[in-house]
Amino acid sequence: MSDVAQPTETRRARGGGGAARRAERTAVSLDTARYITRNIPNFEVLNAEAIEIIEWNAETVLEEVGVRFVDNPYALDLWRNAGASVDGERVRIPRGLARKLCATAPGQYTQHARNPDRNVVVGGKNLVLAPVYGPPFIRTADAGRRYATINDFRDFVKLGYMSKWLHHSGGTVCEPTDVAVNKRHLDMLQAHMVLSDKPYMGSVTEPGRAQDSVEMSKILFGAEFVDNNTVMTSLININSPLTFDGIMMGALEVYARNMQAAIISPFIVGGAMAPVTVAGTLTQVLAEVLTGVAYSQLVRAGAPVIFGAFVTSIDMNSGAPTFGTPEASMITYGAGQLARRLGLPFRSAGAFCASKLPDAQAAYESANSLNMGLLSGVNFMLHACGWLEGGLVASPEKFVMDADQLGILHHMARGVDMSENGQAMDAIREVGPGGHYLGCAHTQANFKEAFWRSDLFDYKPFETWDEEGARDTVALAHIRVRRMLDTYQQPALDPGVAEALQAFVDTRKAAVPDAFV
Amino acid sequence: MSDVAQPTETRRARGGGGAARRAERTAVSLDTARYITRNIPNFEVLNAEAIEIIEWNAETVLEEVGVRFVDNPYALDLWRNAGASVDGERVRIPRGLARKLCATAPGQYTQHARNPDRNVVVGGKNLVLAPVYGPPFIRTADAGRRYATINDFRDFVKLGYMSKWLHHSGGTVCEPTDVAVNKRHLDMLQAHMVLSDKPYMGSVTEPGRAQDSVEMSKILFGAEFVDNNTVMTSLININSPLTFDGIMMGALEVYARNMQAAIISPFIVGGAMAPVTVAGTLTQVLAEVLTGVAYSQLVRAGAPVIFGAFVTSIDMNSGAPTFGTPEASMITYGAGQLARRLGLPFRSAGAFCASKLPDAQAAYESANSLNMGLLSGVNFMLHACGWLEGGLVASPEKFVMDADQLGILHHMARGVDMSENGQAMDAIREVGPGGHYLGCAHTQANFKEAFWRSDLFDYKPFETWDEEGARDTVALAHIRVRRMLDTYQQPALDPGVAEALQAFVDTRKAAVPDAFV
Repeated sequence: MSDVAQPTETRRARGGGGAARRAERTAVSLDTARYITRNIPNFEVLNAEAIEIIEWNAETVLEEVGVRFVDNPYALDLWRNAGASVDGERVRIPRGLARKLCATAPGQYTQHARNPDRNVVVGGKNLVLAPVYGPPFIRTADAGRRYATINDFRDFVKLGYMSKWLHHSGGTVCEPTDVAVNKRHLDMLQAHMVLSDKPYMGSVTEPGRAQDSVEMSKILFGAEFVDNNTVMTSLININSPLTFDGIMMGALEVYARNMQAAIISPFIVGGAMAPVTVAGTLTQVLAEVLTGVAYSQLVRAGAPVIFGAFVTSIDMNSGAPTFGTPEASMITYGAGQLARRLGLPFRSAGAFCASKLPDAQAAYESANSLNMGLLSGVNFMLHACGWLEGGLVASPEKFVMDADQLGILHHMARGVDMSENGQAMDAIREVGPGGHYLGCAHTQANFKEAFWRSDLFDYKPFETWDEEGARDTVALAHIRVRRMLDTYQQPALDPGVAEALQAFVDTRKAAVPDAFV
Repeated sequence: MSDVAQPTETRRARGGGGAARRAERTAVSLDTARYITRNIPNFEVLNAEAIEIIEWNAETVLEEVGVRFVDNPYALDLWRNAGASVDGERVRIPRGLARKLCATAPGQYTQHARNPDRNVVVGGKNLVLAPVYGPPFIRTADAGRRYATINDFRDFVKLGYMSKWLHHSGGTVCEPTDVAVNKRHLDMLQAHMVLSDKPYMGSVTEPGRAQDSVEMSKILFGAEFVDNNTVMTSLININSPLTFDGIMMGALEVYARNMQAAIISPFIVGGAMAPVTVAGTLTQVLAEVLTGVAYSQLVRAGAPVIFGAFVTSIDMNSGAPTFGTPEASMITYGAGQLARRLGLPFRSAGAFCASKLPDAQAAYESANSLNMGLLSGVNFMLHACGWLEGGLVASPEKFVMDADQLGILHHMARGVDMSENGQAMDAIREVGPGGHYLGCAHTQANFKEAFWRSDLFDYKPFETWDEEGARDTVALAHIRVRRMLDTYQQPALDPGVAEALQAFVDTRKAAVPDAFV
């Protein structure tokens, strides 16, 4: 636990003049950008008629086919009382009922961070970026692929804390497989709370672990604050098609009762968990989200929830999931429209890829998905950096590569500046035909903020790049990862709070034996 | 010239059963997809007010600042007669005149290929994809970076011919630096005409070379056909800011007089050749295109032209051009809107990158630009595959990597199928809660066409991929390049036409000594 309790010793270069300037150039920035607020339109692939057909069909599915709430008599009671038809575990929901119940869910909410500068507003025109979630493996450029550990987890939290364009610390940034399954949520939450000051996600793998997440948040924020504010956004997956298991719903119930936010997220591998068509998948996604959101509101009206959609297509030759594909993009664009019609925040997209390496395949696939995520109106983007090999692997190099690309989304979202300065007529008049803009007054006044540039990529002339070792992106990313982890400094935290969190974790761990299933 | 005259011997596997099926799986496909027709909307970043401001400002630039037509008294006469104010080489164009002159340019045109199945319609909702143009260097995975030769050129033409998602053979796919500057256009055109049956571009580096392109096209298509049809689309760059040099305009004049198409293309490195702001750059681009298109119509009303925009931003730290950046994307989205307002086909975007290697940097940058190109309404996309290192380098591996990604643009453009089959309600009813779609009737009927998959990327399980050598995308692409070139077969061509082309090339080459400047 020393990694949490003791700030890593820093290696900042000291001294003035050229050395200081070099140090500044190579120093790892600790700026965090504000969450994105879009000043650009959303891209919409469904026309009004298509939306109406899909919404009608989704209600037909709820009414005729229905959904299953597994091992959850409490949920069946709530549905029965709300007017649904309950037959065993099958719940059939009369047309219009689920949508009506969804109306009490807020259109946006603030998730508080322990550093108020890091608070995020989820919904509306905003986009909040959070890192990869769930991989049991890690791949590093120097050591290859292996099971992830709690130390890896802490490294990812540190990288996230230091990533300028990342707004959120996330949840299970990798599975700490060296910690007992029934206890790892404690270490994960402690890492997010202590090693970062960005907002985080709670545990969902068991209702008791969700409750632990609430308790630990009360230690961090104070009990009264947590009673009155949202401090977690947690991921509730639906077992598509149309199945809501008792454990996930149990976690949702904990969060909804405590007014903590949940992403209600169908988990769609197209052709396996949903039809092979875009419209069919959208129909099922909408039916599932309507049900999950309605259920959250039955548990507690007004609880903050997000319309989620994890979507991937499938390679019909091998059955392998594929990423960054056009069909997944079309579904996400459509799901964004359906979410906005419901007035709910929307979660989808990410730096998805199938590739085993952070190579060109990974980057094409990830860029396709990141661009689509911006334009589809996503409000909460999980997996925005670090995802590799279909989500089986978290990669620190991929993490910093993707995190760098997230800067593009920020700059794109600004839209076009149509001010006098933006119109730049003085510059065009000054330079005239055949002139050069580099030295003109308008360029000098604006160049620092004019163009996004990567902090990672190589823009040097060929000869310089060649002399420096002809490094590819992975090599540059590996250097960046090492430099970030070497210079990481823990954000300040009240020692009493840190001790109380440690005591809670110790007590909880001591209470039950380790379980690895 | 043996490479042109003799079809490469093929290495197709023979025999039935499993061997035949394996051969089929590994065979290089010779299908060429039809050019894209979008069934999705364009993404538009400018609102009506912003468009009006930019259009007003562009006319102000033409009226007050004016443009330069260098070394071109003929052009100055045409402008004077049309009502512009001519002062030395400076041409000031009264508000509204250029736009009025543009009205005779067609909204779309058909470029014919020698194989009519490969004809493309440029404009409207269509997108035609053409390969990289202009690199003096080549980089291959096995041999690194060196000057390109005519043999490299021929290999790129072959790769383009065999690339399913590429509609156009392009122009200077690389500079054949081993052929005299004043003769290489002959070898390049011959390669496009003989080694491929897709449409191609003409030479623009000298008016006489443009005339040679017309003459060779008359040999290929017949003189009467060329008199009555467009068989070339050629690239006329504007020397931004606001300068039209005599040589490029001379080439434009040749093509316009012959009713052959030209792309009128400002060449913008933001901050150097245009203001550092999006709106300022759009203003200059519009002023330049209005002038160039108007001039083409003064030469011959009705000549087919394209509203072009080559746009890149700059790294203000080093002055290096950067690609796949948000500012370049915003300019391209805006330029698409301005082109549609003018009723002209639009050329922009491509698989742009600054990276020296076909690595993750290259792929992020290229994917950003390709996606933007689709959504910005581009009608003719030059550089759609093969571009590396800011356009200094053509790469066969990058060529096949990008060409594979172009499949995504085709599938995205299809939009959402809202037919009964697309709605898939029978599938949802059949499978029900907790079921699986892989085996259902709807999936079985649709799976072959349902999802785009890469023909290049690795989708195998980790263990299989690892056993096969843990290859990255470049390694897979290198294998694909070798396989394509090994199995290339020249498309059939009337031997008399081939001989006449050879005779024309030989005669022209013999007429003047080699020049390397």
